[in-house]
Amino acid sequence: MIILVTGFEPFGAHAVNPSEGLAKAVDGRQVGACAVRSLVLPVHHASADALMAGALEELEPGAVIHLGLAAGRARIAVERVAINVMDYEIPDTRGFQPRGEACIAGGPEAYFSTLPVDAIVEALRGAGIPAYVSSTAGTYVCNRTLYATLHALARSGRPTRAGLIHLPLLPAMVAAGGADQPSMDFPLMLRAVEVALDTVAGAA
Amino acid sequence: MIILVTGFEPFGAHAVNPSEGLAKAVDGRQVGACAVRSLVLPVHHASADALMAGALEELEPGAVIHLGLAAGRARIAVERVAINVMDYEIPDTRGFQPRGEACIAGGPEAYFSTLPVDAIVEALRGAGIPAYVSSTAGTYVCNRTLYATLHALARSGRPTRAGLIHLPLLPAMVAAGGADQPSMDFPLMLRAVEVALDTVAGAA
Amino acid sequence: MIILVTGFEPFGAHAVNPSEGLAKAVDGRQVGACAVRSLVLPVHHASADALMAGALEELEPGAVIHLGLAAGRARIAVERVAINVMDYEIPDTRGFQPRGEACIAGGPEAYFSTLPVDAIVEALRGAGIPAYVSSTAGTYVCNRTLYATLHALARSGRPTRAGLIHLPLLPAMVAAGGADQPSMDFPLMLRAVEVALDTVAGAA
Amino acid sequence: MIILVTGFEPFGAHAVNPSEGLAKAVDGRQVGACAVRSLVLPVHHASADALMAGALEELEPGAVIHLGLAAGRARIAVERVAINVMDYEIPDTRGFQPRGEACIAGGPEAYFSTLPVDAIVEALRGAGIPAYVSSTAGTYVCNRTLYATLHALARSGRPTRAGLIHLPLLPAMVAAGGADQPSMDFPLMLRAVEVALDTVAGAA
Repeated sequence: MIILVTGFEPFGAHAVNPSEGLAKAVDGRQVGACAVRSLVLPVHHASADALMAGALEELEPGAVIHLGLAAGRARIAVERVAINVMDYEIPDTRGFQPRGEACIAGGPEAYFSTLPVDAIVEALRGAGIPAYVSSTAGTYVCNRTLYATLHALARSGRPTRAGLIHLPLLPAMVAAGGADQPSMDFPLMLRAVEVALDTVAGAA
Repeated sequence: MIILVTGFEPFGAHAVNPSEGLAKAVDGRQVGACAVRSLVLPVHHASADALMAGALEELEPGAVIHLGLAAGRARIAVERVAINVMDYEIPDTRGFQPRGEACIAGGPEAYFSTLPVDAIVEALRGAGIPAYVSSTAGTYVCNRTLYATLHALARSGRPTRAGLIHLPLLPAMVAAGGADQPSMDFPLMLRAVEVALDTVAGAA
Repeated sequence: MIILVTGFEPFGAHAVNPSEGLAKAVDGRQVGACAVRSLVLPVHHASADALMAGALEELEPGAVIHLGLAAGRARIAVERVAINVMDYEIPDTRGFQPRGEACIAGGPEAYFSTLPVDAIVEALRGAGIPAYVSSTAGTYVCNRTLYATLHALARSGRPTRAGLIHLPLLPAMVAAGGADQPSMDFPLMLRAVEVALDTVAGAA
Repeated sequence: MIILVTGFEPFGAHAVNPSEGLAKAVDGRQVGACAVRSLVLPVHHASADALMAGALEELEPGAVIHLGLAAGRARIAVERVAINVMDYEIPDTRGFQPRGEACIAGGPEAYFSTLPVDAIVEALRGAGIPAYVSSTAGTYVCNRTLYATLHALARSGRPTRAGLIHLPLLPAMVAAGGADQPSMDFPLMLRAVEVALDTVAGAA
């Protein structure tokens, strides 16, 4: 089975995006019986859709783990749900800024993550990594991507599980900005992704 | 020149104290022209005083860097000042809990850290480590220790520089507690101590 | 048209619940062409359902505004969505504590609030009251109540609009607890409810 | 006995300063045996000094309560201490921005507030108002003003007690800014000042 891990390109005022480096770091790994493949998505829904459609078609993954950045969060946030709304506080990298539009017109109000979110959080905490089940993935491109992936999978009838993990800022991002914000270092984030991969591979 | 680095034993509800491991980790290192020696202090003022008095006598350090834990802080806090008050929210490890007493009766209201605090913070940020100059070391044993060290040095006439660096919780401490609190991983804290040592050694 | 405003009884460690006093405070008021009726709900889903079913039947309200307490929030939170999950961190007042169960088995993943949430937030800010559109009502009884009301309305075919507004702690609750938490005073909360009522009445 | 209450003019990005309105609101009041007089200080140390010197000379107050704004704080902060440093994150209203200078060259490292800070906090909490004893008044004009007043009183030999109370943002300031920040409404702040006046008048 293939597990597809995606990260995002930098966006807004952020010069880097830890999710990009994390996705690349696990590309090609073998986790139990699973092979990991990764993909870096643009921070624009239509372009991300196209890449994801190709990857789902080509790789036929058994699971998809989207990784995204959530400035201000102190812990790894395993997202429970994606809602059918795009309400962007800032424009995406193409200058698109919907306020209150549907992710997919006519789609259901929400999709629940089909990853084992409680088991992932339990495994992360057991590994000494601060984590929680989050009930909001926000209303920006991360939420939109999880919604779109779960919608595409539901329509295609594929049994692929999918979910989203939100990451704190990197220490260097906080150091550069000067504000009083929590952060998490890259090696610990990478360990978190490894624990999530172990959990997903074990549950497969 | 010797740089003395101190950590504290665990206290209160904390099973570990990162400052202890950090002090031990740098013990015996050579930083530029400086030799690092470390000491782990008990979380009780009188016992800490006795250990510090012996160490100042024996090692005649050129600088003292106290390390302490400050739950709830998101960044490395380089303390600017110690004030002459002990106002403990919780008892120390001997059950002592002063509320509003002086650190040293008859001592001055405060001592400023004699470490180059601005230069340390600048170096930390330059190294990608979130840090700031803090204007309060609290009113617990950490503040008391910095006050007592600066008082002892002032009275002895030694040219020794001294200061205190406060550390966030470790990730495993937050993971175990379950609350929404910032943390910093041990390797990044260790890097921070190394940067502080480099700065102090360079300024010596 | 009738606008039904509900509050909740106290729960958990809270001796009071501001939503209860707010609901009672606006009971019987006339807002434009609308009459306000209020109801205090128990913090247990089945009992709350029974009371709500009776009130919807008897009053045939044009709009329902649920009010609830969200400790830790600093601003008035106009909820955007209710999700189909009950995941209680603490038991309700009957000792019921579901972990990961559906609000309504077989119900849709989520319902969006049918109140004009953006207009309410805009009106609140215009009135100098800190407010935002929240994308998570949590997974406790408040979320469950909003979900159940929107589900009942959807099934009945009534055109009634419904939503949920989350409130910060009262100052006295923070003063008694001693922790560092934001609060909002009752008169300002009441003004917020009045602004929400004006907006809903005006949009009716 | 006269109690002098001071507020500050607006500064930085703030269009208003609640301390100004609070000082004006209590001007001329009688509290027990004490008469309240108030003064609004400019946000520049030299001009504030001149006004304070005149007021201390003319009114010979028995107590001085400085009020100041501390954005980001959730509770009334009764300051314990002022330290001898000016380290301004932003310029004052005259464009002056010292980084690491002494408040008063050659002055002591710090002065402790001579108001009954513990009794004030206890009285505030008893009145249902969130409050705490703060161990840092920052390093901006508020800290400088408290330091300068305590220094002037110490040198003059007057028995006048003096202290500083820091206030959260007003709700309208948070509503206008749009950020997630705590606030406190003006009537509750005014009640806090009244409680502080009662405590100071009772202790006189």
